[in-house]
Amino acid sequence: MVDSLPSAVERVEIVRLPERERRLDAVAVEEPLEIRVEGTPLAVTMRTPGHDEELALGFCLSEGIPAVSAAPTADFAANTIELRAAAFDRARVQRSFYTSSSCGVCGKGALEAVALEAPRVSSRLIVPSAIIAGLPGVLRASQEAFAATGGLHATGLFDAEGSLLCLREDVGRHNALDKVVGWAFLAGRLPLSEAILCLSGRISFELVQKAVAAGCPILAAVGAPSSLAIALARDRCVTLCGFVRDGHLNLYSEPWRLRD
Amino acid sequence: MVDSLPSAVERVEIVRLPERERRLDAVAVEEPLEIRVEGTPLAVTMRTPGHDEELALGFCLSEGIPAVSAAPTADFAANTIELRAAAFDRARVQRSFYTSSSCGVCGKGALEAVALEAPRVSSRLIVPSAIIAGLPGVLRASQEAFAATGGLHATGLFDAEGSLLCLREDVGRHNALDKVVGWAFLAGRLPLSEAILCLSGRISFELVQKAVAAGCPILAAVGAPSSLAIALARDRCVTLCGFVRDGHLNLYSEPWRLRD
Repeated sequence: MVDSLPSAVERVEIVRLPERERRLDAVAVEEPLEIRVEGTPLAVTMRTPGHDEELALGFCLSEGIPAVSAAPTADFAANTIELRAAAFDRARVQRSFYTSSSCGVCGKGALEAVALEAPRVSSRLIVPSAIIAGLPGVLRASQEAFAATGGLHATGLFDAEGSLLCLREDVGRHNALDKVVGWAFLAGRLPLSEAILCLSGRISFELVQKAVAAGCPILAAVGAPSSLAIALARDRCVTLCGFVRDGHLNLYSEPWRLRD
Repeated sequence: MVDSLPSAVERVEIVRLPERERRLDAVAVEEPLEIRVEGTPLAVTMRTPGHDEELALGFCLSEGIPAVSAAPTADFAANTIELRAAAFDRARVQRSFYTSSSCGVCGKGALEAVALEAPRVSSRLIVPSAIIAGLPGVLRASQEAFAATGGLHATGLFDAEGSLLCLREDVGRHNALDKVVGWAFLAGRLPLSEAILCLSGRISFELVQKAVAAGCPILAAVGAPSSLAIALARDRCVTLCGFVRDGHLNLYSEPWRLRD
């Protein structure tokens, strides 16, 4: 039974820089969905709501689990879906899925695990918006492996003057960010309360989560943030900048950290 | 101890279309890494080799695990890394990480779990390369939510004439593909032996894995494939097309399925 079908798009208030213009912007919705088969929790995926029965069935098919349809208890409003399976070997599934994920979110067995334990980011850092606007150019110019392959995400760590401290590339964007945070740990630079993180792609919930855990007050990206990335940034006092391109950017939270 | 530091970039032989020119192309390397803390397997992540200690430390930091350094047994050649932790609560970690991931790869607790059980794709489908070249344009034109937000991946399922059968969008590219496969399941269209899948982004190992599980012989994408995506496509007889842009494309495997 479908309780509600949430939209794939949500409107949020942003500040467009350098104009300092307030406007409503459409963002892609990201929400957790717990997939259960015959009562057994299988996975939590961060997804855009809609077509959830297809998502759960396709996921099970990829994993070799013979799910056949959504059970009448599917509850989209609660972000869980229960599948029926013709012949379901619970023991086999539990053997295959016994541990964690690298994604920081999926791999958690319960929706509650999505909640972050790290405290709010406490930093009085203020930087000129022109410095943020210039970061993606530095990032791209420094991406050696991307230039060769076109296939790598990058994360750059910058100081408050916009100087590049560390750049890492990876096929997985969460890995590129983890590498930078690991570098900062080894360099004795945690928490990152006076630094800026810049990403080559889009901003998901898990990437904000990692920035919060590292104590970084400003997260900028070339791409778009998801709805849940924005919600987490607002809750944890992170200044989130998206669509940092061509001298412009969208500010989604804590705009006081960027001055003219 | 570092046994070997594999490169982030690998060269593979491709066929460039429509020229039918054989050349060597640089691709981003993707390989699994198992992260262990004090003997406990924590996660397998699909990553680009290099800076693995940073990656593992950054991952642990995000998860609230007090790892401090790589143990002397770190063995990059075997794609495992063992971390030391000052005070490691094994029970807490096992509680948090008890189940699967939506990624098809990460979330598996052992490297062996990365191996796919699905058989090779058996299909005699042959299509004109011009049909493949036209798919991203159809995909993009049909992406309603992306147009609004700039923040969504898409997967399209096409028939052999290039007609769009199903399009799904999601913040996660694996979700968009799962939704399309779930749609095909509900429509009684599996296996997809006469169909083509087209992706809006890059091609990772897990996306090829999902196409193989659905029995699809041709996987095309606007972006770059990883080294492991290519290796899997070659092993499972999937025709992999990357950089499908501006009337050109790169063919990485089973080129006989595309004719002039």
